[in-house]
Amino acid sequence: MTTKPARGMRDFLPDDVRRRQYVIGIIGDVYQRYGFEPLETPSVENIETLIGKYGEEGDRLIFRILKRGDEGKAGEADLALRYDLTVPLARVIAEYRAQLPKFFKRYQVQPVWRADRPQKGRFREFYQCDVDAMGSSSPVVEAELCAAVSDVLLALGFNDFEIVINHRQLLTALLNGAGVDPSRHGDALTALDKFDKIGRDGVAQEFTERGIETDAASRLLAWMGTAWPADWLPWLEQQLPLDGAGRAGAENLRDILALTAATSAAPHIRVEPSLARGLSYYTGAIFEIKVKDLAGSLGGGGRYDNLVGMFAGEPVPAAGFSLGLERILVVMGDRKMFPEALVATAAEVMVTIWNADATGDAIRLARELRGAGLRVDVYPDADKIGKQFKYASARNIRFVAVLGEGERERNEVAIKNLTTGEQVPVPRVGVANYLLASLPRT
Amino acid sequence: MTTKPARGMRDFLPDDVRRRQYVIGIIGDVYQRYGFEPLETPSVENIETLIGKYGEEGDRLIFRILKRGDEGKAGEADLALRYDLTVPLARVIAEYRAQLPKFFKRYQVQPVWRADRPQKGRFREFYQCDVDAMGSSSPVVEAELCAAVSDVLLALGFNDFEIVINHRQLLTALLNGAGVDPSRHGDALTALDKFDKIGRDGVAQEFTERGIETDAASRLLAWMGTAWPADWLPWLEQQLPLDGAGRAGAENLRDILALTAATSAAPHIRVEPSLARGLSYYTGAIFEIKVKDLAGSLGGGGRYDNLVGMFAGEPVPAAGFSLGLERILVVMGDRKMFPEALVATAAEVMVTIWNADATGDAIRLARELRGAGLRVDVYPDADKIGKQFKYASARNIRFVAVLGEGERERNEVAIKNLTTGEQVPVPRVGVANYLLASLPRT
Repeated sequence: MTTKPARGMRDFLPDDVRRRQYVIGIIGDVYQRYGFEPLETPSVENIETLIGKYGEEGDRLIFRILKRGDEGKAGEADLALRYDLTVPLARVIAEYRAQLPKFFKRYQVQPVWRADRPQKGRFREFYQCDVDAMGSSSPVVEAELCAAVSDVLLALGFNDFEIVINHRQLLTALLNGAGVDPSRHGDALTALDKFDKIGRDGVAQEFTERGIETDAASRLLAWMGTAWPADWLPWLEQQLPLDGAGRAGAENLRDILALTAATSAAPHIRVEPSLARGLSYYTGAIFEIKVKDLAGSLGGGGRYDNLVGMFAGEPVPAAGFSLGLERILVVMGDRKMFPEALVATAAEVMVTIWNADATGDAIRLARELRGAGLRVDVYPDADKIGKQFKYASARNIRFVAVLGEGERERNEVAIKNLTTGEQVPVPRVGVANYLLASLPRT
Repeated sequence: MTTKPARGMRDFLPDDVRRRQYVIGIIGDVYQRYGFEPLETPSVENIETLIGKYGEEGDRLIFRILKRGDEGKAGEADLALRYDLTVPLARVIAEYRAQLPKFFKRYQVQPVWRADRPQKGRFREFYQCDVDAMGSSSPVVEAELCAAVSDVLLALGFNDFEIVINHRQLLTALLNGAGVDPSRHGDALTALDKFDKIGRDGVAQEFTERGIETDAASRLLAWMGTAWPADWLPWLEQQLPLDGAGRAGAENLRDILALTAATSAAPHIRVEPSLARGLSYYTGAIFEIKVKDLAGSLGGGGRYDNLVGMFAGEPVPAAGFSLGLERILVVMGDRKMFPEALVATAAEVMVTIWNADATGDAIRLARELRGAGLRVDVYPDADKIGKQFKYASARNIRFVAVLGEGERERNEVAIKNLTTGEQVPVPRVGVANYLLASLPRT
């Protein structure tokens, strides 16, 4: 019997969990400061809730759960594992509409499961960190989302990130203006979205392969394959007449950018005309977060005004951002961005057991130290004291407390600092304060 | 299409999540103070890892995941959802033995899934909070476990709980001493374990039904159907001669109790001779936590020295405690034990939007207040100010900030306290401090 985790799944040992909890903690704190509230949905959904929401490829990647008992004999599935956090959110909005605030703002940090072929950095169970605001189509929503995500990244120690932004309505207007047939919009966007991977020439070639006319393709590359000037809206209007929806999209994008000027996102945000974000459910602004040392993105999002309506039966405007926890952890690991105190922070002090008689005293001392807020381990056996010291040292525990016969007679505890090797007698009543003063507190 | 969660599963809206996170946070903090480290394992395990570990009934309750793609056509399952946190721990110990400390102490708070028939308080997805110590058979382990669990319960605000304790080896000795045939031990323990549900007469009747001889049954009831005296070991030795294993069990129980005397568990712990904890993998001390207003227990545990060896190939002594998060939450809800600040703690302040021109100022103010650590919502639209106030009030937000034309001219912000109705002008630079001073901080 193998003792490895299942294919594409991971065990998180204590150092892993501490790093993950550190990042998740910061994300939650920042989002709460923006008035977002935590939501959790079940790992398991009815299969009909999920099937058909993620396209054909998505459907194939859904983990399906067999019916129980006799019903399962036929091999039928009635349940499935959560595939993302957006569809469950849409279901929740529809189900609890009456008790949720009109502008429901939620964050959700939970695992999702996809039966993808595992490869470096791609797992079958991974965490998403989503933040979404429902009920308003105001550009304040997008500006606040960009600000919140910037604050998260800054709080984690990132300062070189870019939030690239674009707008679906504007993209459509540009495709129309360039003369791309509406039936080819999807193809054109798919090609365009690869700009930062395959470059201008690569996109030009893919345009040809995907049957985009030469004239339309070269117009698209002139407009979208280049950085726009700072004052891009007048420039764009010189390039082509914007139709109603296109103009509304451009103005919405301009308003969002203007509002982010007052936020921490300001130095990080940049219009990226080639950003298309796949073919999914976005209807307005779209974003992606880039850092130099990572192909792909740390996260992305946008406005999706039609998705919630699929469940709620009436349109509910919505916009959100999803951060990829696993990628954030990889980059933070590579860049050594985790605080040192996170590693090897199991226990700060280990109380040794001098002999069987002294065990009660050891437990009593541990209790006092814990009461003072210290993280304290008790060595379980009355092994040779050298063995106990060695164990504490191997575990990176900073201080060891010894209650030997002499110490107990003098009402003292010998405290050894395993970093310096120094051992000092400390009066019994003063041990907690001595250790608190000697340890860096996190 | 239904928008309800799947059968037996629950959505947790923000107030639910805050309560859950509050309890989970306290559990983690206390366990860390005892030197336990966090572990997380995947929700999905290879099916062979789980099947056969929980008995026939358990096997039936495991959620099985269909093979993907063509392989799944035959209706075969190769994966399954985690059923408890103990078997995955045993797998982890076996897999990472070399890199884990000898006395690996971990806590784990994660959901498990069981295809049980849902009923009041019983769900198909629920959280377990496990704490286990590997590698030592010292009674220090059990004493520390009882102390840690007591500290958790005390920190949550419970003070009327009981930790009932018994010992598997002692139970076996008593069954032998009473003359119960070894083939009937399981039956006798099953009956005995129901003592607090069906009482002495009920157990007596079940003994008869299960074919326990009358003499043996009455001896068992004399020994185990009654509270033992404080100095129970000499008393017990008058009742029957203890064999080697029985005597070792009794002494181990005595040692554990003696060590807990120095801990916060002392006033809560009590020997309960009828406690048997089902028929599962326990080999030594067994515990259960009781509170008066709950049938069943808030948690339980014990020593299980043989389970890890099933995976590791060599014996690894182990003992642990599992707390039932869902039951703890139910009792805490019934008793109103949650701090008031947990409810309606979405945002502390809402910044209103006076008109479109003032939106940037509103976002700038929100940024400053968030920088000061406040939880701040921004109303997204320039609706009538009365409507904005009403929204904040419905959301239980304490303070509303207004940046009207007059306020902006005078470089002030009007702060309205929605609890008292009082509205005061506050100089722009002093708003964060004013609010920090006015709000109870958690």
